[in-house]
Amino acid sequence: MGIVVQKYGGSSLADAASIKRVAQRIVAAKKAGNDVVVVVSAMGDTTDELLALAHQVSPLPQGRELDMLLTAGERISEALLAMAIANLGHDARSFTGSQAGVITDSAHGKAKIIDVTPGRIEEALSMGHIAIVAGFQGVSQDSKDITTLGRGGSDTTAVALASALHADVCEIYSDVDGIFTADPRIVPNARRIPRLSYEETLEMAASGAKILHVRCVEYARRNQMPIHVRSSFSQQQGTWVVDSTSTEPEGEPMEQAIISGVAHDRSEAKITVVGVPDKVGEAAHIFEVLAEAQINIDMVVQNVSSAATALTDISFTLPRTDGQTAMTALAKLKDEVGYEQIQYDDRIGKISLIGAGMRSQPGITAKFFKAIADTGVNIEMISTSEIRISVIVNGDGVDDAVTSAHAAFGLGSDEVEAVVYGGTGR
Amino acid sequence: MGIVVQKYGGSSLADAASIKRVAQRIVAAKKAGNDVVVVVSAMGDTTDELLALAHQVSPLPQGRELDMLLTAGERISEALLAMAIANLGHDARSFTGSQAGVITDSAHGKAKIIDVTPGRIEEALSMGHIAIVAGFQGVSQDSKDITTLGRGGSDTTAVALASALHADVCEIYSDVDGIFTADPRIVPNARRIPRLSYEETLEMAASGAKILHVRCVEYARRNQMPIHVRSSFSQQQGTWVVDSTSTEPEGEPMEQAIISGVAHDRSEAKITVVGVPDKVGEAAHIFEVLAEAQINIDMVVQNVSSAATALTDISFTLPRTDGQTAMTALAKLKDEVGYEQIQYDDRIGKISLIGAGMRSQPGITAKFFKAIADTGVNIEMISTSEIRISVIVNGDGVDDAVTSAHAAFGLGSDEVEAVVYGGTGR
Repeated sequence: MGIVVQKYGGSSLADAASIKRVAQRIVAAKKAGNDVVVVVSAMGDTTDELLALAHQVSPLPQGRELDMLLTAGERISEALLAMAIANLGHDARSFTGSQAGVITDSAHGKAKIIDVTPGRIEEALSMGHIAIVAGFQGVSQDSKDITTLGRGGSDTTAVALASALHADVCEIYSDVDGIFTADPRIVPNARRIPRLSYEETLEMAASGAKILHVRCVEYARRNQMPIHVRSSFSQQQGTWVVDSTSTEPEGEPMEQAIISGVAHDRSEAKITVVGVPDKVGEAAHIFEVLAEAQINIDMVVQNVSSAATALTDISFTLPRTDGQTAMTALAKLKDEVGYEQIQYDDRIGKISLIGAGMRSQPGITAKFFKAIADTGVNIEMISTSEIRISVIVNGDGVDDAVTSAHAAFGLGSDEVEAVVYGGTGR
Repeated sequence: MGIVVQKYGGSSLADAASIKRVAQRIVAAKKAGNDVVVVVSAMGDTTDELLALAHQVSPLPQGRELDMLLTAGERISEALLAMAIANLGHDARSFTGSQAGVITDSAHGKAKIIDVTPGRIEEALSMGHIAIVAGFQGVSQDSKDITTLGRGGSDTTAVALASALHADVCEIYSDVDGIFTADPRIVPNARRIPRLSYEETLEMAASGAKILHVRCVEYARRNQMPIHVRSSFSQQQGTWVVDSTSTEPEGEPMEQAIISGVAHDRSEAKITVVGVPDKVGEAAHIFEVLAEAQINIDMVVQNVSSAATALTDISFTLPRTDGQTAMTALAKLKDEVGYEQIQYDDRIGKISLIGAGMRSQPGITAKFFKAIADTGVNIEMISTSEIRISVIVNGDGVDDAVTSAHAAFGLGSDEVEAVVYGGTGR
């Protein structure tokens, strides 16, 4: 008898009927002989509604109070789920993040988990209860204040609890059947990927695939916790995210695909600093200023300097939401660095090809670029890792480029998947 | 510089605009030089909405989970209020009942406060912060589970915190200007009572006046904590509830009115057990069974037994919500006790005359009965205490009887109060 941790997102807990349906799934897992721990997000749009209320009373709500407010969301869903399970004749107990022992730092709105001490959860399991835990939230080690974990928080709660409890598997449920070779809204014959290594999943997540958050995958990799990404609306197997040497889920290492999938991301913007004096330290200075402004840079390209002018251009991509902050920070730097101008472009898209097999296969890059070129889409920036190639293109070209690359590497199935590809909530 | 505890009910926190208005009142109290602690109920209809959700997932939600669910309501209102105060440039920190040190027993849904250890509140005050505390909730001393205090819970939280903090006053805000000589919806010229003793307030509360709950007044009396009942919609003085020897609020003992007011209550039902053998212990047996069913009996009348039959009738009143439970419990008793039948009447009303002065004034009872008789309303049951006379009448006669008694004792003012008389939320 093992421990299974299941996490249900807001789309799986949209209303009373959904909660009752999820309760049945949970009871089925319990009846199958498992100790079951369930991590929940807030119901449907609860978080957005609470945020809207906050902005009605204050243009700049304090992080501490925002966390107090938003954590009401999971409190509601966990209590309702526990009631629904009890109504099916099984004992369930709900626990807040604090009660479940999710100890964090004090960074409100984006707290990091420092420790998980799930004594009350273990006690509940030992009494035969199903434990329901509020995801996304914890308690600060120093201030004892309530914290939230930020984006990907509920998934991270689930993986962290699963690790602390030495669970057999952490099942992440959403309204999608798993991780796909491409977004099925763009590529109708995209295939569900049965198994992915942590590394490939990390690259997929960082490249815009919205199923799992980077942070949760990193936590799972560190703790070697198998994740099973699946739909709460079907009984199908989803995608197993495991160590590349793992024998899960079928008892033997699966054949490794050369290319796992094509991901895309429309959430970035590109900034080009034109006419930067090509002297030691100027580029470093620009990125120091951006780092101070807490901006995460993704891709960077520096043009070859013109010999005549000794000036160069530096382009980089960043989350579009940080665009205004970055432009303001750079504007203050104009006199100091002496660049000519800064250009901002938020009509870009990033397309990434991911596959652990590509490190030993020559010609992958050429084939990827050709597939994109065949659609008439121009590549503006390039970045590569051992198991990923990413390019920046004009936003209008994203769908065509994804479709063409997906076909070029033979990733599609003969059938069209009957799923709607969406987010996982938080 | 003293400590003021303010409590705002759900009607004062109905939406973002109300919360911002309340925030201004709180800041004014702080600017006046007080340390301010604020206890809040859930916003407007939040509790009812959460209860409706609970009943959608389960016909009989567990107390523990219902408490986890409902406490989300105050969490939302306290966080929003703290944000609104911060937006006015003052530091505010919100605390759950558990964080505020409200320690209770484990009776979910109707927990009793065992202890209040407000260390974090004192710390917040010492740093110059305004402390916002979720009313109605606490944490169980034994199980460490979240509890709720049941009816009157938020008011009780406020009085308990005020007592533990040795506050100067506990201000209870609602949408009503104070406690009135009668319900102004029935008696348009009812007057606000400037000052009431704890004892009179207890009798008023127990007799159906909806402003303060019995439990909160008892707590205040035990701790000699002055309560100021007032409206969050005006700056007027409300009703001070104080010890009968107190000099609050005007520096000297106020002249004691003989009669404080006329209260009424339409929430009870009457049960008559007809033809009970008039033997020792039969009546006791009936009330034992009702006590076992957790039913609180209010008034009891036993008719004089008929010499011919040696049978008597026993009538009592009880909360209408307990009517079905009581009838079921009594039906099981029929063979054992051998009564003839039970009659249920929920079309009754209770009218009570309250006044500390009546104990030394003869003729009050006769005047009260005559005022009611003059309206043609028949008195069905009578009960008296040192400072109260209550009668049960047919429900249709309540308005006339209240109006007549109010006039007979000269309680009205020349002006009609421009208020709407309502409840205080929970």
